[in-house]
Amino acid sequence: MPIGPTQLPDLQPIAGLSWGIASVGVKNPTRLRPDVAVLVAETPCVWAGAFTLSGSRAAPVRWSEARKGLPFRALVVNSGNANACTGNRGMEDVATCASRLGQAVGLEEGQAILAASTGVIGELLPMERLLPGIDAAFADRGETRWEDAARAIMTTDIFAKGASLTVDLPSGGSATFTGIAKGSGMIHPNMATMLGFIGTDADLDETTLSAMLRRSVEESFNTISVDGDTSTNDCVFAVATGRVAVEPRDKEMLEGALLEICKQLADAILRDGEGVTRIMNIQVEGARDDTHAKKVADTVATSPLVKTALFGADPNWGRIAGAIGRADPELEWERVSIYLGPYPVVVEGQRHPDYREEQGAEVFKAQEVDIAIDLGVGRGRALKRSTDLSYDYIKINADYRS
Amino acid sequence: MPIGPTQLPDLQPIAGLSWGIASVGVKNPTRLRPDVAVLVAETPCVWAGAFTLSGSRAAPVRWSEARKGLPFRALVVNSGNANACTGNRGMEDVATCASRLGQAVGLEEGQAILAASTGVIGELLPMERLLPGIDAAFADRGETRWEDAARAIMTTDIFAKGASLTVDLPSGGSATFTGIAKGSGMIHPNMATMLGFIGTDADLDETTLSAMLRRSVEESFNTISVDGDTSTNDCVFAVATGRVAVEPRDKEMLEGALLEICKQLADAILRDGEGVTRIMNIQVEGARDDTHAKKVADTVATSPLVKTALFGADPNWGRIAGAIGRADPELEWERVSIYLGPYPVVVEGQRHPDYREEQGAEVFKAQEVDIAIDLGVGRGRALKRSTDLSYDYIKINADYRS
Repeated sequence: MPIGPTQLPDLQPIAGLSWGIASVGVKNPTRLRPDVAVLVAETPCVWAGAFTLSGSRAAPVRWSEARKGLPFRALVVNSGNANACTGNRGMEDVATCASRLGQAVGLEEGQAILAASTGVIGELLPMERLLPGIDAAFADRGETRWEDAARAIMTTDIFAKGASLTVDLPSGGSATFTGIAKGSGMIHPNMATMLGFIGTDADLDETTLSAMLRRSVEESFNTISVDGDTSTNDCVFAVATGRVAVEPRDKEMLEGALLEICKQLADAILRDGEGVTRIMNIQVEGARDDTHAKKVADTVATSPLVKTALFGADPNWGRIAGAIGRADPELEWERVSIYLGPYPVVVEGQRHPDYREEQGAEVFKAQEVDIAIDLGVGRGRALKRSTDLSYDYIKINADYRS
Repeated sequence: MPIGPTQLPDLQPIAGLSWGIASVGVKNPTRLRPDVAVLVAETPCVWAGAFTLSGSRAAPVRWSEARKGLPFRALVVNSGNANACTGNRGMEDVATCASRLGQAVGLEEGQAILAASTGVIGELLPMERLLPGIDAAFADRGETRWEDAARAIMTTDIFAKGASLTVDLPSGGSATFTGIAKGSGMIHPNMATMLGFIGTDADLDETTLSAMLRRSVEESFNTISVDGDTSTNDCVFAVATGRVAVEPRDKEMLEGALLEICKQLADAILRDGEGVTRIMNIQVEGARDDTHAKKVADTVATSPLVKTALFGADPNWGRIAGAIGRADPELEWERVSIYLGPYPVVVEGQRHPDYREEQGAEVFKAQEVDIAIDLGVGRGRALKRSTDLSYDYIKINADYRS
């Protein structure tokens, strides 16, 4: 059982961007479900991407990364097969898919067809089914099909994920952002393991959109972890149609909107984390610098001992202390403070005299648990959000070829 | 159920070293069990130690580390309470324990009483019960009590761990090594989370013993992982009574014997890993250097997705590929090969044409699974040994205050 949201909010269309969907049985031809989607821009658009840092990046990731700077015309995405670790043949298959979609949209020289895939690693794409599916998806497209697209990109996800926001700009107009995402396992920063597609009608140039996306991803998808595993296929794309004029004074609000969309999508991914029953928010402060804070937050967020304590609602702060110590051999423990919810548990390296076990137990009973750590040596800070480690996580992942 | 060995081998005494045991109810005064042990040298001895790199090192670790270079007289160890994250009071308590044992042995200026603790973090030691226990253990000591000591240091361990070996030296004599260890959770290199105590009658100077112990620990305890969590209390001590004369030509054989003892103890810890049902041996070759190889081996060894696949006997090599990619963003994937047991699965970045799923399934059905990874870029290599991630791991660690 995911811990919600299980219902999609209304997803506003972005004029000039259409999604088309097809069901081709990418993973299994006898079990048809929507598993191919194309995103088509009526006219060439500005786009930006954020990609996994994995060294075993999948073919579509390498393909899309290489198209940086070219105007966006269309994107093809499939679920059920990641096209990862598939060698030269995998790269050829992406090129063939892009070319097929290029024919449909009337691609011109110097424009980009992007690609994204998610699913099982190490298998070749079923091209004989996929190529007709691309044609079918293209024929079937419409501007109001964001929700259908959100469903088509799901793999082990239990619910579809989307977010939409319209903001009134200081300069007078209003701009809309709509995004969808998938992800529930192999979730960890760099990127969080996932796919995300965000459209906006704001008129943003590539440099601005790229910078906005990079910062938004860092503060949203890159703060979450389900199982500590980085995927081969993570990517987030943002496409800006440019229909709403933007002045320099609008940019802060636009970036705020993009960040909000990313945060909502990241939160949905966390709440659909494999086997999740509780979420923890780990706020680290007082670190030497932000990198130091991130290392400590990350170690606590991914510690199996902390994660199982969270599942068991056991406020076993010794495990948090253990993880902090593992993260940093140079730690000055006598400066460290730990808070569970509002309660100080350890202050300057020593158990707070007033802390009582019942206080921690009260905090750990909730669906969302706040853990704050002050390292007491500087101004670095970081937030990481993570899930518990439950029986269902094992069940989901120990089953044959999940 | 651990996957054996569940029976201790015969543990040979080391002349001049005695263990004494007492039951004081360190954790719970109403549940008496052997939980205090003292190791006493008849005459001052050479000793060496290897200690956790955790930044939240427990008081006894800090205490013992600070006694490097002083001749060994005795050691006090307790289970049930780690005396970690206990501030100044924790340090005072170690000093008090050492002083009590020092009175018993007639400690002279410039000699060392060492200390080690294992158990729950963040609680103060029950000194009112512990101090009389030290006296009782001292009074009760004998040279043949290694097995009793192995039981007294257990916490969540299911079986006691010990190893013993006598070797004939090239120079004519014969030397004996006997060791005991504990550990089953919070197990990960730097040190593997554990306590270990090894005695020998060989006449080794401190420099030689320290170097031998450092190398042996690196190739034994530091290759194993159960849950990726480093403890606050890891340490391994080696004590050499010097009764057996040693010539320079004996040293290689002595180091081999020490390494063998450490490997046997490390193997026992792995087989008693929390919830373990299968073990994997991850051999990485062809890395840029040994550090690179270690990083890749470590990432595969601790990946929850790989560990759950191992539990499910699912030869899902895509998860191994994902973990390799996470370990190294600069990976040249087209040079990577992966073998499951004798079967090549991926060769130079592509699935081997002859590989069949049934081959991987056959390998993953065994209790011990060999995974070999060739990164194809250099001569660096590393071995890591790890466990699966099972329902029982969750059960053991989600229960209240395990």
